[in-house]
Amino acid sequence: MSKGTVVLAYSGGLDTSCILVWLKEQGYDVVAYLANIGQSEDFEAAQKKAESLGAKKVFIEDLRAEFVEEFIWPSVQANAIYEDRYLLGTSIARPCIARRQVQIAKQEGAQYVSHGATGKGNDQIRFELTCYALYPEVKIISPWRIPEFYTRFKGRKDLMQYAENHAPSDLYLMTKNPDDSPNHPDVLEIEFNRGVPVRVTHLKDGRSEDTPLDIFSFLNEIGGKHGVGRIDIVENRFIGMKSRGIYETPGGTILYHAHLDIEAFTMDREVRRIKQGLGIKFSELIYNGFWYSPECEFVRHCISKSQENVEGKVQLSVFKGQVYILGRESPKSLYNEELVSMDVQGDYDPCDASGFIRVNAVRYHCRLQGDLKK
Amino acid sequence: MSKGTVVLAYSGGLDTSCILVWLKEQGYDVVAYLANIGQSEDFEAAQKKAESLGAKKVFIEDLRAEFVEEFIWPSVQANAIYEDRYLLGTSIARPCIARRQVQIAKQEGAQYVSHGATGKGNDQIRFELTCYALYPEVKIISPWRIPEFYTRFKGRKDLMQYAENHAPSDLYLMTKNPDDSPNHPDVLEIEFNRGVPVRVTHLKDGRSEDTPLDIFSFLNEIGGKHGVGRIDIVENRFIGMKSRGIYETPGGTILYHAHLDIEAFTMDREVRRIKQGLGIKFSELIYNGFWYSPECEFVRHCISKSQENVEGKVQLSVFKGQVYILGRESPKSLYNEELVSMDVQGDYDPCDASGFIRVNAVRYHCRLQGDLKK
Amino acid sequence: MSKGTVVLAYSGGLDTSCILVWLKEQGYDVVAYLANIGQSEDFEAAQKKAESLGAKKVFIEDLRAEFVEEFIWPSVQANAIYEDRYLLGTSIARPCIARRQVQIAKQEGAQYVSHGATGKGNDQIRFELTCYALYPEVKIISPWRIPEFYTRFKGRKDLMQYAENHAPSDLYLMTKNPDDSPNHPDVLEIEFNRGVPVRVTHLKDGRSEDTPLDIFSFLNEIGGKHGVGRIDIVENRFIGMKSRGIYETPGGTILYHAHLDIEAFTMDREVRRIKQGLGIKFSELIYNGFWYSPECEFVRHCISKSQENVEGKVQLSVFKGQVYILGRESPKSLYNEELVSMDVQGDYDPCDASGFIRVNAVRYHCRLQGDLKK
Amino acid sequence: MSKGTVVLAYSGGLDTSCILVWLKEQGYDVVAYLANIGQSEDFEAAQKKAESLGAKKVFIEDLRAEFVEEFIWPSVQANAIYEDRYLLGTSIARPCIARRQVQIAKQEGAQYVSHGATGKGNDQIRFELTCYALYPEVKIISPWRIPEFYTRFKGRKDLMQYAENHAPSDLYLMTKNPDDSPNHPDVLEIEFNRGVPVRVTHLKDGRSEDTPLDIFSFLNEIGGKHGVGRIDIVENRFIGMKSRGIYETPGGTILYHAHLDIEAFTMDREVRRIKQGLGIKFSELIYNGFWYSPECEFVRHCISKSQENVEGKVQLSVFKGQVYILGRESPKSLYNEELVSMDVQGDYDPCDASGFIRVNAVRYHCRLQGDLKK
Repeated sequence: MSKGTVVLAYSGGLDTSCILVWLKEQGYDVVAYLANIGQSEDFEAAQKKAESLGAKKVFIEDLRAEFVEEFIWPSVQANAIYEDRYLLGTSIARPCIARRQVQIAKQEGAQYVSHGATGKGNDQIRFELTCYALYPEVKIISPWRIPEFYTRFKGRKDLMQYAENHAPSDLYLMTKNPDDSPNHPDVLEIEFNRGVPVRVTHLKDGRSEDTPLDIFSFLNEIGGKHGVGRIDIVENRFIGMKSRGIYETPGGTILYHAHLDIEAFTMDREVRRIKQGLGIKFSELIYNGFWYSPECEFVRHCISKSQENVEGKVQLSVFKGQVYILGRESPKSLYNEELVSMDVQGDYDPCDASGFIRVNAVRYHCRLQGDLKK
Repeated sequence: MSKGTVVLAYSGGLDTSCILVWLKEQGYDVVAYLANIGQSEDFEAAQKKAESLGAKKVFIEDLRAEFVEEFIWPSVQANAIYEDRYLLGTSIARPCIARRQVQIAKQEGAQYVSHGATGKGNDQIRFELTCYALYPEVKIISPWRIPEFYTRFKGRKDLMQYAENHAPSDLYLMTKNPDDSPNHPDVLEIEFNRGVPVRVTHLKDGRSEDTPLDIFSFLNEIGGKHGVGRIDIVENRFIGMKSRGIYETPGGTILYHAHLDIEAFTMDREVRRIKQGLGIKFSELIYNGFWYSPECEFVRHCISKSQENVEGKVQLSVFKGQVYILGRESPKSLYNEELVSMDVQGDYDPCDASGFIRVNAVRYHCRLQGDLKK
Repeated sequence: MSKGTVVLAYSGGLDTSCILVWLKEQGYDVVAYLANIGQSEDFEAAQKKAESLGAKKVFIEDLRAEFVEEFIWPSVQANAIYEDRYLLGTSIARPCIARRQVQIAKQEGAQYVSHGATGKGNDQIRFELTCYALYPEVKIISPWRIPEFYTRFKGRKDLMQYAENHAPSDLYLMTKNPDDSPNHPDVLEIEFNRGVPVRVTHLKDGRSEDTPLDIFSFLNEIGGKHGVGRIDIVENRFIGMKSRGIYETPGGTILYHAHLDIEAFTMDREVRRIKQGLGIKFSELIYNGFWYSPECEFVRHCISKSQENVEGKVQLSVFKGQVYILGRESPKSLYNEELVSMDVQGDYDPCDASGFIRVNAVRYHCRLQGDLKK
Repeated sequence: MSKGTVVLAYSGGLDTSCILVWLKEQGYDVVAYLANIGQSEDFEAAQKKAESLGAKKVFIEDLRAEFVEEFIWPSVQANAIYEDRYLLGTSIARPCIARRQVQIAKQEGAQYVSHGATGKGNDQIRFELTCYALYPEVKIISPWRIPEFYTRFKGRKDLMQYAENHAPSDLYLMTKNPDDSPNHPDVLEIEFNRGVPVRVTHLKDGRSEDTPLDIFSFLNEIGGKHGVGRIDIVENRFIGMKSRGIYETPGGTILYHAHLDIEAFTMDREVRRIKQGLGIKFSELIYNGFWYSPECEFVRHCISKSQENVEGKVQLSVFKGQVYILGRESPKSLYNEELVSMDVQGDYDPCDASGFIRVNAVRYHCRLQGDLKK
């Protein structure tokens, strides 16, 4: 008799295939679930494989549009970046994937979910915190933390891990090596509204995209072609270890620079300062797996509020791994050319600066004069 | 044959007595360790009890002076307060107690330590993180997290827990009920140097104390007499639950107010602002058990640095549960009576304020004037 | 011929009376404006005085309700407190008063506004930044910063300043000396909704108030009777000086404690932590006069969002200068008695704490093992 | 008769030459002071020009070494970056230049200093706050804020300003256009100790530098050759305006990336998080001119403390405007290859992660159970 149904986040690879078979061995009915968030994958082949391994049902889910709109766009608004360098691509994919998995589990009456994330990484946390948030009663089977499983399959994992830690540069799938990238830039214009891109235009060939998924795909294509967004870093996992991370985020990197620029152009200085702090907090939260936490919802709301006037167009050039901002324009610009120029005094009296500076120096000259008693 | 030696943090109460016996049943040699951090306790009776229950050795350790100097004083410097209300008394006692326990364990060749903290509280974390920091190879036996133990002794714990959650006001041991406290205040003067108290003087009867332990004991006595420092709060445990906390911190409350005052008098405004943020961080760290972490050491260092000029005397009155600041004096005062008075202009030209204010308003009037492109 | 019309924030006192006359001497038509924000004042007498001194028009404006609802309530939501001690009463009165003054100026076609704040204080800044924000073209006449004026009237100001700096304890207008306050507490219940009080009930005599103004007045009355909310502090002015401040905030102090408590009971720990940082920022902004700045609007919005579930009732006792929280209840409570108790394991497995603690200690034990190169 | 002596920060250009002559016209003795902080300049010609214009004395001061060691190195330790993009090159030059100017003024018995910074910019503030901090009694003559001066010379400034706002890309002096930069990378190794570079080695040709000035010059040369560190941004001035900034920081950009990397490798995660916040604060302070403020000294001290273990070597490639980190090694590494690998469990038990995750989810499941009253 079946122990119950488990929905397994299936990748099509050897790893989660082993898990699928093992879960059946343990007496579960297994529903395989494969999310399409834009990775290159033969989904049909994966489906057949899962079926042939004994999956009771197989779900292939196209999450690309919702991933871009509901996960990537808020991260763009936040200028989300972990430890000053990592743009958090995989971090935000996990809650998106796990959310659908939980929906399937509820729909299929499954009490269990399972995944192939390792026992020392961040993904297990991102995955499971999402499940606990959205399906509190769920039971999670995490084979790489179950001694019986990981002792048996250890050999294979060693290999993968080794590969991950000693990865050659041909590990990159989306981005060209900048050495081999074109000798001429592509020049794009990205239009933002409320802090998210609403259109991208190639200024030479005129190609233009205006749905979230098309915009993001196009930016990935252009960024990838020019080798944009590769990093090789040491990062701090939530679990307390340092690990090496090799990432490529071509489209995300272009958007990071473009958004920083239009935001600086349209947002008040002090709002920006407060929002910067919230963005750092947001980045830590999503890195650590707290996308579906009360605090992350709160921070997302605040950041979204800050974006009300982040509107306009940014022109940029993509070339040899770099993104160069060429210009920006906005109906909500707070840049006042007249005010800043020397030839027009306008409302601003330079003499005021003397008072401003002297008052800012008052603190420096406080000296003891007496005590303060009743 | 013995499984090895375990050093047990022993309280003399029924609870840890059960643990002592149970550990022996499990095959361990038990060293009982009782820390004196100022609680009222019959240490001799406790020693006899531990011996009669089969402790191989009993250590009664007087940690009062080091507790005040190395744990309370840095917290005073930090204005440490958790969630705006809790002065962290027990939080800082744990690392002090566990530090000595680890020293005893190493000295006695014990591989194990044990304690009686419950499995849902903060103290287990504060205790164990200290042990892991100072004795990385140690093995910790935490009976209230071991099903075999807690199932057997559950009944008794229920009672304690019930008492804790429905505590009557006679729970307070150190402080009088303000209703019953004297109808006349005591007036004290506390002298600080580098942010820590170096002398307290009773301004009427002339009694004066100048060692850390004596100062703190005297402040506990006066604060207790007047019912100072009782709180009944809901707090957020590290473990993720909210719990009710009923605390009394008579001496700590007096010091909190006095230190805030002398600090405001002698510290630059902007240094104070940065230090305030570090103090909040420090408070969270010690509440959560990270006293012996790299970040807590770093923050302690920074806070200590900020205290270099926090020096002077504060006069205050203690009455009916309240602490009233009466005055302060300091050789390092940054209060400049001449500068602040209206009758002397001194270095300060009021006209400068006009420029200061207008420049602060410049941001308000930025309007769109044009785009910014190459 | 008139130089134009100036709306003067008139207090009825000698100080602004001098200014009124002086402005007329300078050739302005003067509109006197007196705001009632709850101070005790003979408004009729003030009106007559202003008229007799030559004011073209006199406006006596009752701002009490809007002051409570639009300025005090957001500050309660924020737990606003400057430099850990000052509840910001006068700080939030200024933008309220200046807002109406600007409305009158626009309505009366006045290009000028004037006030009696001194040239070294905070009030001039709070006042003028509000005017610049709401009426960018306005011209501000600040006599205490105009040498011709302040040289002539210096003698009088000296006196005031002296009084302010050497104030005896009978300076307090709203609060009794705790020494002389009743020997029996008053026990109140305050009900909150979305972080603001919606009803206060005296639990003994049954008196109950439920409009913002009535609630706040009642709390001032009870707090005042028991000597709650007096402070004598050294604070850091925006202008860079330290100054002494003697304040009484009876109702505000009761609300501060009650709101802290209901918030802790109903708000997620991590949301609270982020909101605490925003509240500190908010406090600095309003102390410095930036109520009507983009960043203060942003922060107010965020704080208001955080209050959605801050709902319930707090019981408290007011006695001898102190506020004691007695209990709280809420339909949105996050306190889970079952979860926190020892006798029910519920969803929580104490064994999980072992993993939690060990993972939190992983960082402590990172050691050098090798380099990380391509 | 002379009005006294003024030390003028002289650039050799038309602008400060006008000021020199005007100051003499006003009746001052003028001492011209020209700081060499590494800019390309004909210092001898400038000296002659100043003399010919009537300077009483001319000081040409080589500040290059102290600029690198005392100003750039602490900024590298801080990862100082303003508004996420600007590496603060000119911001930190001002306090360095003004410090020496003040020394000369004191030595020459001059009561006045003067400079050519405009009345709407940041440099006037950085310059003058430094002077007020180090020479409180100094009087500052700021001609571009004196109507008599700026009305007369306005025409010329317009031109400069125009150039600045509409700058073509040949504005860059140190960096090649990445389009025209070499098609092969240079590969460097930078060695750090206590967070500052102590040696740079060109891994192919073996060239190596080990004094601060030589290291920094070499990095500027390599970075410049490959077009590294150009930005075109909109930034928020302290004075409240947004302005366009076009900067090139070739050496600084290389160091920024290298230091981020070695820091991530050797610094505890939580120390890093706190230090990151201090670095952001530090960046704002130096942008706004507060290098010589109490809070900036405090923050510098704290940041310096955080760097004690930031030691090791970073290998990197510089190519087409980009810096790629290739690897890093350190005797103080906190990266533990064994701990992080799958094949060795070491001290880490993956099962602990289950408890860690579940405890992190406890907050999600708090539900109302009851009220909390006495």
